[in-house]
Amino acid sequence: MTWSAPELPPLDREAAAELRRIVDGKAKPPGALGRLEDIAVQLGAIQGRVDPSAERATVLLFAGDHGLTEDGVSAYPREVTGAMVRLILDGRASVNALARAVGAEVRVIDAGVACSLPPHPLLQASKIREGTRNAAREAAMSADECAQALECGAQAARAAVEAGAEVIALGEMGIGNTASASLLLHRLGPAPLADCIGLGAGHDEAGLARKHRALSTAAERCDAQGPFEVLRQFGGLEIAGMAGATLAAAAMRRPVVIDGFISTAAVLVAARLQPRVLDYCIFGHSSAERAHRLMLERLGAQPLLDLGLRLGEGTGAVLALPILKAAAAMAREVASLAEVLGQA
Amino acid sequence: MTWSAPELPPLDREAAAELRRIVDGKAKPPGALGRLEDIAVQLGAIQGRVDPSAERATVLLFAGDHGLTEDGVSAYPREVTGAMVRLILDGRASVNALARAVGAEVRVIDAGVACSLPPHPLLQASKIREGTRNAAREAAMSADECAQALECGAQAARAAVEAGAEVIALGEMGIGNTASASLLLHRLGPAPLADCIGLGAGHDEAGLARKHRALSTAAERCDAQGPFEVLRQFGGLEIAGMAGATLAAAAMRRPVVIDGFISTAAVLVAARLQPRVLDYCIFGHSSAERAHRLMLERLGAQPLLDLGLRLGEGTGAVLALPILKAAAAMAREVASLAEVLGQA
Repeated sequence: MTWSAPELPPLDREAAAELRRIVDGKAKPPGALGRLEDIAVQLGAIQGRVDPSAERATVLLFAGDHGLTEDGVSAYPREVTGAMVRLILDGRASVNALARAVGAEVRVIDAGVACSLPPHPLLQASKIREGTRNAAREAAMSADECAQALECGAQAARAAVEAGAEVIALGEMGIGNTASASLLLHRLGPAPLADCIGLGAGHDEAGLARKHRALSTAAERCDAQGPFEVLRQFGGLEIAGMAGATLAAAAMRRPVVIDGFISTAAVLVAARLQPRVLDYCIFGHSSAERAHRLMLERLGAQPLLDLGLRLGEGTGAVLALPILKAAAAMAREVASLAEVLGQA
Repeated sequence: MTWSAPELPPLDREAAAELRRIVDGKAKPPGALGRLEDIAVQLGAIQGRVDPSAERATVLLFAGDHGLTEDGVSAYPREVTGAMVRLILDGRASVNALARAVGAEVRVIDAGVACSLPPHPLLQASKIREGTRNAAREAAMSADECAQALECGAQAARAAVEAGAEVIALGEMGIGNTASASLLLHRLGPAPLADCIGLGAGHDEAGLARKHRALSTAAERCDAQGPFEVLRQFGGLEIAGMAGATLAAAAMRRPVVIDGFISTAAVLVAARLQPRVLDYCIFGHSSAERAHRLMLERLGAQPLLDLGLRLGEGTGAVLALPILKAAAAMAREVASLAEVLGQA
């Protein structure tokens, strides 16, 4: 079994051109709002309207564990994934505080946490297996599992949009997932493996050496090239979920705000499946995880913020949401120069 | 007459140290929220508490005209100042749309617009004169006028704080005010005049040459050095207002979010009057006006955003407000790692 990425509608070039004309005609020097103007036009092109809106945003936070943690690729034990997911459901993690501050909602999708999680109104229980297999030794997922993980992401995006989300933001929690993201960048970037590996959530020198060894072993184990097969081989379940969510959101003409290194890896997979998906993506921030810059370069992406974040959970995407909201408000609400000159 | 800058309280180092300890102990890798953590600690140090708050922000938007416009330093006629102030009071300018999007209030202070403005509930009518004198030929303000302009800013800050503002953001409107800001940077930076001049709201080559000539004439006319005298010589009334507001807000332990080139020039004046004021300043963004970077360097300031804005009105400060709100929320609301480990 494989997974068919949805067909994506082209951007609405007509709405974009009209909105650019409107924004250029606002009561301000042309271009004086810089990237805010570009974001406004992108939102209009995605939504197919000249009065874009980014009021209602939902963070889809995908969680999953990684077999690679057996080989010590993370400074933290895998049990932290489940503990952090419970904290997020409890509303007491970083992403919750930030989402409340900017007025966004958070939904959690269990794509493969290695413990059982009690039912919760904010939780989509889509556990495909209790963590991926160890990618240093075997494929992280079967083809069926990988397809299911992509599909659980698409489901989450559809549910959020049905519930009224105008904007989707990506988040993740998964001890060991920078390791998977590094392998995805290495194979799909492509880029030399050594350039793809960083400190993750924190490593000493010995830990970093372990991570390099495990990832070299994984990369040497298989020569998969296509995006679905590379994703299946290297994981993870939550990354597949984010890739599926991004594609499904784009198919529904919803902008997707990308977080850091892990969620950008999901977009890398999605873009190799369906290049047009990048038209729908807004990159929230540049992570302090050093390989993120390389990954962004490979995607031709220019993130909005650069605040030295390296947490994940969707925190960098959430901080970018007010910029979208402000851009849309500017496009809708600011008077035209013609009106002001009439008054002057 | 001159103006006595208020004494400023030192930052609360004890609260800052305790808050740093709290933030380091949150359920996340230490430092993983980057500059958000530093902003949280700065807010705590300013407010003297370990549960900082940045919910209620007020933009103080100072407006004034410039005699230098007689010499063609701006691509726009001075009448635009009054027209834009009316648009802002009407809630239909860029800063209004952005402020609504992030939940901030806007107050306008007429420090010296060259036309009469009808009373308005959002307007502080403090007109000191109808625009400054032409700084290329004579002092922009008398000492009395300059002191009054500083004081009208202090009044505005006090009124905003009395009305409940936890955070003050600076904004301005004044055709020709990049010219004054360039002269302030030149003399107070200090920096070579040619490095201090940029395109402002938009100039062709001939316009830029005119601006260079007028500013050279002004700089050669007088050799004032002290901050009050330099401000008085080069203007403007709205810049003096912002300097006074910044100092008064700091005296009341309120963080001040700085916008672009003009409001940073006001902070340059304020910092030369009272260096400690910088502890209370958060620089919202790096402007596309090229001399802004040089000015920020002179102040040792690192802005939060870099989105290519060059509008003024406070737009870059307003876009940074959600970052303060998120930082404070993080400090107050995120669980400690100890709690999570207890649960794991």
